[in-house]
Amino acid sequence: MLPIAVDAMGGDNAPHAIVNGARRAHESNGTPIVLVGRPDEIGDTGGLPVIAASEVIAMDADPGSSVRTMKDSSLVRAAEAVRDGQASAMISAGNTGATMASALLRTGRIKGVKRPAIATPIPGPTGTPTILLDAGANAECKADWLVQFAQMGTIFARARFGVAVPRIGLLSIGEEAGKGSPLVKEAWGLLDEVDWSAHDAKFIGNIEGRDLMGMDCDVAVTDGFTGNVALKTLEGCARNIVGALLEAFETDEQTKAAAEQLYPALLPLYQRFDADSYGGAMLLGTKGPCIISHGSSGEDAMANAISVATDMVELDVVGQIHQAING
Amino acid sequence: MLPIAVDAMGGDNAPHAIVNGARRAHESNGTPIVLVGRPDEIGDTGGLPVIAASEVIAMDADPGSSVRTMKDSSLVRAAEAVRDGQASAMISAGNTGATMASALLRTGRIKGVKRPAIATPIPGPTGTPTILLDAGANAECKADWLVQFAQMGTIFARARFGVAVPRIGLLSIGEEAGKGSPLVKEAWGLLDEVDWSAHDAKFIGNIEGRDLMGMDCDVAVTDGFTGNVALKTLEGCARNIVGALLEAFETDEQTKAAAEQLYPALLPLYQRFDADSYGGAMLLGTKGPCIISHGSSGEDAMANAISVATDMVELDVVGQIHQAING
Repeated sequence: MLPIAVDAMGGDNAPHAIVNGARRAHESNGTPIVLVGRPDEIGDTGGLPVIAASEVIAMDADPGSSVRTMKDSSLVRAAEAVRDGQASAMISAGNTGATMASALLRTGRIKGVKRPAIATPIPGPTGTPTILLDAGANAECKADWLVQFAQMGTIFARARFGVAVPRIGLLSIGEEAGKGSPLVKEAWGLLDEVDWSAHDAKFIGNIEGRDLMGMDCDVAVTDGFTGNVALKTLEGCARNIVGALLEAFETDEQTKAAAEQLYPALLPLYQRFDADSYGGAMLLGTKGPCIISHGSSGEDAMANAISVATDMVELDVVGQIHQAING
Repeated sequence: MLPIAVDAMGGDNAPHAIVNGARRAHESNGTPIVLVGRPDEIGDTGGLPVIAASEVIAMDADPGSSVRTMKDSSLVRAAEAVRDGQASAMISAGNTGATMASALLRTGRIKGVKRPAIATPIPGPTGTPTILLDAGANAECKADWLVQFAQMGTIFARARFGVAVPRIGLLSIGEEAGKGSPLVKEAWGLLDEVDWSAHDAKFIGNIEGRDLMGMDCDVAVTDGFTGNVALKTLEGCARNIVGALLEAFETDEQTKAAAEQLYPALLPLYQRFDADSYGGAMLLGTKGPCIISHGSSGEDAMANAISVATDMVELDVVGQIHQAING
């Protein structure tokens, strides 16, 4: 396998935690990795090769213009490594929009794909998350793009989480077919016409926000505006409830002691709901596989993201999407 | 005060829990209440008067057609009681769409209001929730409706939760002014032009899904599609995390015992995040005040809803909205 290009400069904990996560993935699984960034800031790579890039696109920079103008940035160089056959996939915990833009502009869309989408695993009560897409790549969508999102999400759910026959739901505000926005109504009609058995998938109709963390849907399709609002709403809710719990645990000495006894039972829960466990989101639809990690990614999250990227490359998700879209 | 019309037949726990909640509100606060529904099913009213209605609109019935055809339904009769000056407000835990439709069709819009909106309090880390509107009345919205939602939400946040200068946020997918859907971009421009100091309010720009449970925004405006997805996503997330916690607490005898010691510290948390504590959502913009309670409402939720309705009537929220919209 060609090495995975890791943007060493992207994210709140770059470069230190990113480099350590990459080193760990390499040392424990032998994954070939190339780091991209400023060699003097990256420090000890533990023997991993480095593609030098002198610029860093800031977390809050405008994606389009920064990718166009900062040609020697770690993100652009990472995407070019994939385009030029030096790397098999790219990963960044940096500016989400710029990560997406660099992958899209440098590696291009898979033939037939109308728009790439961000696919994000949403944890639920079982070990198998629901794939939400588009989680923010396209603020405005056409109904037929959503059909492609469903096709791409199906492939991702199967490749990454082993879902044999993914159940596709359309995110709406009522379960009946006629409920929702004009976009949803049109998308429902198109999704209902597809012969999903040919894709080893099933269209289950409309789902609601409360089903995102449920067990009945494997691939939830929506436009990037709604998807991003839902994703961030989930993140905020989980963070708030966990924060309030931890505060309550500190009420007094007695609750502190009781809470300590509970930690062994709570830890697996925490891991199940922790976004880092899933290694981030994936941009589906570009020729170069691209993993978009959370800005707050630490060492663990980066090691997990590298394992996701490895799976995506080895299972040829890009080839599978090409096949699904072009028949 | 004129009595509050309570739909005794609406909701999963009707009529028993509804009638008991109404009786309790009457007995503890002396609130005048009239129950609406089938007298033989309502049973012992504890002296509360009843407006007889022979039909019940099912939870899953089509709102528009059921309100048009079921003229002797408890919902339609409740709305007519408000229209005809027999009641000051209506409350139902039944079919949300039909509750909204009956209030709208029977009592009409406040002059100048383009569309009524559902305002739902979202619990957060403080005792003051964020008011989310529209939480589902209008699947498709125009930008200028969102400005009215902000005006109405401001009045509700002040009247119901004592927020002196409500901070208005526009739900989007990025905090910068240019981020979001075409609707959001247009609404941003309109909201930014309003002299909010004249409304004793403040426009703080775009907010994201994660801010809904935060402390920085008092009134979150959005279209009814996005708002309903966000609301149900929150509900699903909270239910899932709480469910997983309760399950973890049962892991073994030791965790069970430790969890029991924590309950006193967790109970206030539970109450803070429990939707029932806020007594449901309010339909803003109709001439007749209308409280839309959760379908799962029990006795507590109904008693709380009656207290919300009382506040709304006594503080003349309808008159205040009329004043704000018509200058």
